Amino acid sequence: MARFLKDRSKAKGQAPGSLVLIGRQKMEKPQISLMDYGSDHLVEHELDSINDCIPYLKTKYVSWINIYGIHETEMINSIGEIFNLDNLLLEDILNTDQMPKYVSGGKYDAFILKMLDYDSDSNIIKAEQISIILGKNFVLTLQERKGDVFDPVRSRIRNYGGRVRLNNNDYLTYALMDIITDNYLSIIETIGQKIENLETKIFSENNEEIASEIYRYKIELSFLRKNIRPAKEAIMNLLKNVDTLFRADTLSYMVDLKESIIHASESIELYSNLVSDQLNTHNTLVNNKMNQVMKILTIFASIFIPLTFIAGIYGMNFTNIPELRLKYGYLFFWILILIVGIILLLFFKKKKWL
Amino acid sequence: MARFLKDRSKAKGQAPGSLVLIGRQKMEKPQISLMDYGSDHLVEHELDSINDCIPYLKTKYVSWINIYGIHETEMINSIGEIFNLDNLLLEDILNTDQMPKYVSGGKYDAFILKMLDYDSDSNIIKAEQISIILGKNFVLTLQERKGDVFDPVRSRIRNYGGRVRLNNNDYLTYALMDIITDNYLSIIETIGQKIENLETKIFSENNEEIASEIYRYKIELSFLRKNIRPAKEAIMNLLKNVDTLFRADTLSYMVDLKESIIHASESIELYSNLVSDQLNTHNTLVNNKMNQVMKILTIFASIFIPLTFIAGIYGMNFTNIPELRLKYGYLFFWILILIVGIILLLFFKKKKWL
Amino acid sequence: MARFLKDRSKAKGQAPGSLVLIGRQKMEKPQISLMDYGSDHLVEHELDSINDCIPYLKTKYVSWINIYGIHETEMINSIGEIFNLDNLLLEDILNTDQMPKYVSGGKYDAFILKMLDYDSDSNIIKAEQISIILGKNFVLTLQERKGDVFDPVRSRIRNYGGRVRLNNNDYLTYALMDIITDNYLSIIETIGQKIENLETKIFSENNEEIASEIYRYKIELSFLRKNIRPAKEAIMNLLKNVDTLFRADTLSYMVDLKESIIHASESIELYSNLVSDQLNTHNTLVNNKMNQVMKILTIFASIFIPLTFIAGIYGMNFTNIPELRLKYGYLFFWILILIVGIILLLFFKKKKWL
Amino acid sequence: MARFLKDRSKAKGQAPGSLVLIGRQKMEKPQISLMDYGSDHLVEHELDSINDCIPYLKTKYVSWINIYGIHETEMINSIGEIFNLDNLLLEDILNTDQMPKYVSGGKYDAFILKMLDYDSDSNIIKAEQISIILGKNFVLTLQERKGDVFDPVRSRIRNYGGRVRLNNNDYLTYALMDIITDNYLSIIETIGQKIENLETKIFSENNEEIASEIYRYKIELSFLRKNIRPAKEAIMNLLKNVDTLFRADTLSYMVDLKESIIHASESIELYSNLVSDQLNTHNTLVNNKMNQVMKILTIFASIFIPLTFIAGIYGMNFTNIPELRLKYGYLFFWILILIVGIILLLFFKKKKWL
Amino acid sequence: MARFLKDRSKAKGQAPGSLVLIGRQKMEKPQISLMDYGSDHLVEHELDSINDCIPYLKTKYVSWINIYGIHETEMINSIGEIFNLDNLLLEDILNTDQMPKYVSGGKYDAFILKMLDYDSDSNIIKAEQISIILGKNFVLTLQERKGDVFDPVRSRIRNYGGRVRLNNNDYLTYALMDIITDNYLSIIETIGQKIENLETKIFSENNEEIASEIYRYKIELSFLRKNIRPAKEAIMNLLKNVDTLFRADTLSYMVDLKESIIHASESIELYSNLVSDQLNTHNTLVNNKMNQVMKILTIFASIFIPLTFIAGIYGMNFTNIPELRLKYGYLFFWILILIVGIILLLFFKKKKWL
Repeated sequence: MARFLKDRSKAKGQAPGSLVLIGRQKMEKPQISLMDYGSDHLVEHELDSINDCIPYLKTKYVSWINIYGIHETEMINSIGEIFNLDNLLLEDILNTDQMPKYVSGGKYDAFILKMLDYDSDSNIIKAEQISIILGKNFVLTLQERKGDVFDPVRSRIRNYGGRVRLNNNDYLTYALMDIITDNYLSIIETIGQKIENLETKIFSENNEEIASEIYRYKIELSFLRKNIRPAKEAIMNLLKNVDTLFRADTLSYMVDLKESIIHASESIELYSNLVSDQLNTHNTLVNNKMNQVMKILTIFASIFIPLTFIAGIYGMNFTNIPELRLKYGYLFFWILILIVGIILLLFFKKKKWL
Repeated sequence: MARFLKDRSKAKGQAPGSLVLIGRQKMEKPQISLMDYGSDHLVEHELDSINDCIPYLKTKYVSWINIYGIHETEMINSIGEIFNLDNLLLEDILNTDQMPKYVSGGKYDAFILKMLDYDSDSNIIKAEQISIILGKNFVLTLQERKGDVFDPVRSRIRNYGGRVRLNNNDYLTYALMDIITDNYLSIIETIGQKIENLETKIFSENNEEIASEIYRYKIELSFLRKNIRPAKEAIMNLLKNVDTLFRADTLSYMVDLKESIIHASESIELYSNLVSDQLNTHNTLVNNKMNQVMKILTIFASIFIPLTFIAGIYGMNFTNIPELRLKYGYLFFWILILIVGIILLLFFKKKKWL
Repeated sequence: MARFLKDRSKAKGQAPGSLVLIGRQKMEKPQISLMDYGSDHLVEHELDSINDCIPYLKTKYVSWINIYGIHETEMINSIGEIFNLDNLLLEDILNTDQMPKYVSGGKYDAFILKMLDYDSDSNIIKAEQISIILGKNFVLTLQERKGDVFDPVRSRIRNYGGRVRLNNNDYLTYALMDIITDNYLSIIETIGQKIENLETKIFSENNEEIASEIYRYKIELSFLRKNIRPAKEAIMNLLKNVDTLFRADTLSYMVDLKESIIHASESIELYSNLVSDQLNTHNTLVNNKMNQVMKILTIFASIFIPLTFIAGIYGMNFTNIPELRLKYGYLFFWILILIVGIILLLFFKKKKWL
Repeated sequence: MARFLKDRSKAKGQAPGSLVLIGRQKMEKPQISLMDYGSDHLVEHELDSINDCIPYLKTKYVSWINIYGIHETEMINSIGEIFNLDNLLLEDILNTDQMPKYVSGGKYDAFILKMLDYDSDSNIIKAEQISIILGKNFVLTLQERKGDVFDPVRSRIRNYGGRVRLNNNDYLTYALMDIITDNYLSIIETIGQKIENLETKIFSENNEEIASEIYRYKIELSFLRKNIRPAKEAIMNLLKNVDTLFRADTLSYMVDLKESIIHASESIELYSNLVSDQLNTHNTLVNNKMNQVMKILTIFASIFIPLTFIAGIYGMNFTNIPELRLKYGYLFFWILILIVGIILLLFFKKKKWL
Repeated sequence: MARFLKDRSKAKGQAPGSLVLIGRQKMEKPQISLMDYGSDHLVEHELDSINDCIPYLKTKYVSWINIYGIHETEMINSIGEIFNLDNLLLEDILNTDQMPKYVSGGKYDAFILKMLDYDSDSNIIKAEQISIILGKNFVLTLQERKGDVFDPVRSRIRNYGGRVRLNNNDYLTYALMDIITDNYLSIIETIGQKIENLETKIFSENNEEIASEIYRYKIELSFLRKNIRPAKEAIMNLLKNVDTLFRADTLSYMVDLKESIIHASESIELYSNLVSDQLNTHNTLVNNKMNQVMKILTIFASIFIPLTFIAGIYGMNFTNIPELRLKYGYLFFWILILIVGIILLLFFKKKKWL
């Protein structure tokens, strides 16, 4: 399966407005969990059907509905009706090959983002699409698969009880997005650490693995860039939007979030350049080594080749080689060998190969 | 024939306003088909002459006229008169070397787009120009050649009958463009899949074919970029246009289309970079391999060259080589050989070549 | 002579307003030709002096004055007076090292453009500066040298007679510029065709000529870029100018022209990238070939070098080499040779060099 | 520890508003020093607690509070209360992995900047975060560690006494930032000097060290870029801010500062390019040298290999080699050797290898 | 001394407003020359002290004061007072490591520019800072060293006498800047000419010098870019400034100047790319040559190595080598040699190495 663009054959030829899940179908039953809370109130439920959350939407409390598994299109249809979401947004939620984006629907603010998961053994990053929808009195989050990414927010809700800020659903939205963004920086840090460590390898050994390792990092950095960079524009679109449910002071937190994403993007570029420099340096070192090897080989071969030739001459069986019968012939041979050898050594000295 | 710029010799020296087909002439008779439909009405016809569609234009129903083959300039002239199109637009339709663009004529909205066709065996993408013109009560589509690209829309019209949205001609226009855009993403996915698969080849074998395969992909990605990227600006020009026939809610679908094209463009860049990285990695691996080969050769040659020289010496026929007559001469020779060999091995060990 | 920047030593230290021809002086007498025409009227004249055109400027007809040769600065001075041109524009006309540009003088619109001429044998493009000035009732064109570039427009004027559009001098200006732009696209097509053909050469043979050919194309594409790209901005400056002599409907033709130049620029970039990719692919192929050659050499040398050494040993003349006197010594020798050879072959097999 | 992104594991899963020090914890007790001064007044104190500075904030004099060590979060909390700083700003101060930025709080202007320290022996640049906050009647500076960077400003305050400008706290802020910026330029100058000196090395010797040295500079230039470039945008944000405590004439000094940072950024790019050119040139030289070495080796080997073969032939022990018994056989042998040698030399001459 | 960033150690830790000369101190006494002129008036004086020019500033004539040598900070202080210049501008004048810039002081317009001097023997460009300040009734120019750069303007003032334009001090400013800009283009032309000539060298010989020459040009082009490019923005800042002493018609000359600088910048980029292409082509050619050399070596060695081995075998002294005693043994040997040689030749033929 192509990693950078998911299989869209199922959607081909479909009416643009029809709901089709793009990406691998996950077969488990979707799980719906609800947190309904306020300063003096906390209800947590696992729901059987999305319809069960309707009563909570009418309370004065913040209702956070989280859904794992988006493959049941009927459920998505029900969600659309219950939360009053546009068809195009529902399509975006189902299309897991979406770029990160912000959709302003007037009556809601929706973010399509990517949760990233870095397996540091295989050096491969996986992306899962997370949709976060802020409505008048609810926050709706949809994930492709079960995961524990939002657990820190959950425990903060449980523990802090009446703390003010999380009682606003726009701040809750921010807190959820903040976790995703923090995750970006922490993945980049891990991969960046590994890239910086490559440095030692480059200068100590020169093996093939470095090339494939560098290649691996380049791929993963591209993958990071693809999934993180558009999130910046998403937040900028929110900030430009005058018709949003976010209150002014939460928006200032979103500005901070935007800066985190810019920081992440710049770090990705920085590591991309670093990795390219490493490949270049590696190539230069291999090149230098080969040059040195060539010089040794040339010196060895070029000195001994004529000497061996001379020895070959006096190994010939011509009946009449006068030098062979000289009394000091063998001595003269060695003198000749020495002279030729020294001349060649001086020649290479002059060429600065020694 | 140049693939990136088509033969324009026919148009040279012509008055700028004159209609000349740029690109290969197709010889088959143009085919004109008409769909006139509404919520309670559907007429399909193959027309002999473009004039036969005039009656349908006056009905309250949506009239979609599709034409294969644009080489009959008289027909194009008639089209211009019947549908009230500007001469510059007719020129654009005929010039199949046009970049994708949007032309706003006040009384119509016209898109010149490219339908792409990827032959995955030869790894070659072909482009065909498709013009889509939205008028007050008609949609006119012109294609260079016969094809089945719009069939899904046709069957949707036939099946869904009274569904609301396709009864609006601006939505029909969107649906046709959506098919073209979907096709872009699906071609990029196919070619991207192949590029990602190259990875295995790079690390397992190192043959010439990889270089030519990578080159092939670079060319095709350039070709994709050339034909897709300007479509983004075309839609942006539509969105900026206050004087368009598109209704507001269809425009929001067009925004989605624009994002698809941006997604396509970014994927093209991503795969371009990937392919460049693959070439670099391939070169590094070949380089590394050569370095290793050089080291083996050097070690072999450099060890045996002096040894062979020594053997050559004692193969000489000088009458007076004292070593030859020593009782343990041959043994001493072997000891000498071993010493020289070990010294050289240690030398290479120190150089870290072993 | 530098090709990308012309000799400006003559202008050095001159007052900025003084008229100096930058570029090689052409010695032939300038030729002045006039076409004065309208729907019912056509006069053509070769003029001896630029003053002879004054009477025609007062008629209601379009007066097109074309001048070959701009080396007589007095003539340029007279032109400035007759047509009421600013000194800075006259300077620009004389400075043939000018970038393409648009000068709006309120009472005229002037374009400084480059006519390009591609000699497909030597693969060299030559540029000639053409100035086109649109005044209230005249069009003035100045060329460095005699040429037939505008002949198609001339014959259209002669033939079409009363056709409306060419009777407007702004449309005439457009028609002349259109010829120049068409020429750009046709040169790019020719050179692009040649570049695309290089592909075959790259994969079939690997000779030095490809490197120099690719270099040649890079130079010429730079030259094209330098001469074409600024023309886009020139037209954009015209379109932004509210104080122009162009009428609105001719401006829509100029928009089309701008798009042609953008198309040309993008094609230049496309071919530049293609040519760079070709050079990279060529280098990779040469590299691959060298790797393969190295492997063959290594295998050959590394197998025979120890074998030759062994043969050398038994060619020695020690009085006491026991193996030589063995009955099956020679047979054992061959067995030894075979064993060593096979071990080496297996070694290279393991290294995947065979 | 990753150098380009600091360890943020401590902050993971924390509420976005909670104060956590990102970066290594420093264990020494924070030091707080205060300068309270005016034209006729100067008080200097080392404070035990941040609360001790409260009385000074109420005077009409400028109060500059400088703090080394930011690891005590309670102290940071107190600072927030005393100086009335937003929580987000306090977070930024603690997060030492922040990019340089400007925060406008209406009641204060805050800059998060990086002080750089270049160890010219190890060729490594270290960054320390410095926060400078300009309030109505105070300037607050926070540094990670003890250092003497602001000493020149301190001695100017002590010496100049009543000089007007430093009596304004906005000018003091500028003076402190100016020191940091000056430091940037001086580090770039030092590193740039070293890079320019590399030139000689490249052309005189070709050793591995150059590759690693160049790599080192590339890394450090990336590090400089990361820490300096965003400072430009920080100042631009200040200049765009209408609601700032900086007075107009101090802002004109800030414009100058912005230009210094632009100068620094451009110098970084310039040296980056220089270093890349050096690597390319180094590679080309190594390549050229290898080509030359190959030619020498080829000439030597290719001349002697056939000669040695001929000598080998006449060293054979066939009973019946007629040449061996010729009277002038040995002479003929030498003539043959000479002829073969000369033919080969001419061949290489023709190939232009000699 | 670093060439791209000058020594600023003297300025470190100084108050930002204090005047310190950055760059090498020149020891000669500054020279002050004055031209006071109008249509009917011309006074030229060498002044001893800058105060001597005060009377001339009050006349109705244009006063042009030119100063060589800016190392006497008292003099600069006096200049500041006499001409009413801001302290920041005086700093800029003294800091010879300034980027080209425009300073608008309301009561004056100041340009800090670089005069370049190209030594075509050493291929090194030197930059000298020139400050040009246009005041209400004066033009003040300050140069680091004595030079004759403005002589053409001086002689024009002397000769033309009453010519109108030079009687305006804004036009005089333009004329001086025009000389500097002309100088840029002429240096680029000279260096460009040399670069274009490199082409022949690349294809005829392949020596190390080309690499160092190309490197040299890259450095100098960077140096040109650094000193020229910001001048464009300087003029654009002037053109955007509504509060300038330049009159409208002189500003249209400044537009022309801006275009010259753009032309210069684009030529620098063009030659930079050309030089990079040359290096690439050079590398490809060296690579190709090495490939060819390798092939020759391989063919030679690979053919003779087995042949020599065979000859070695029959040079062995085994008592019992049956072939040696065959009657036609030697003949069979030659037949064997021929067969092996031909097989190898055919093998290489098949590999396309011959």
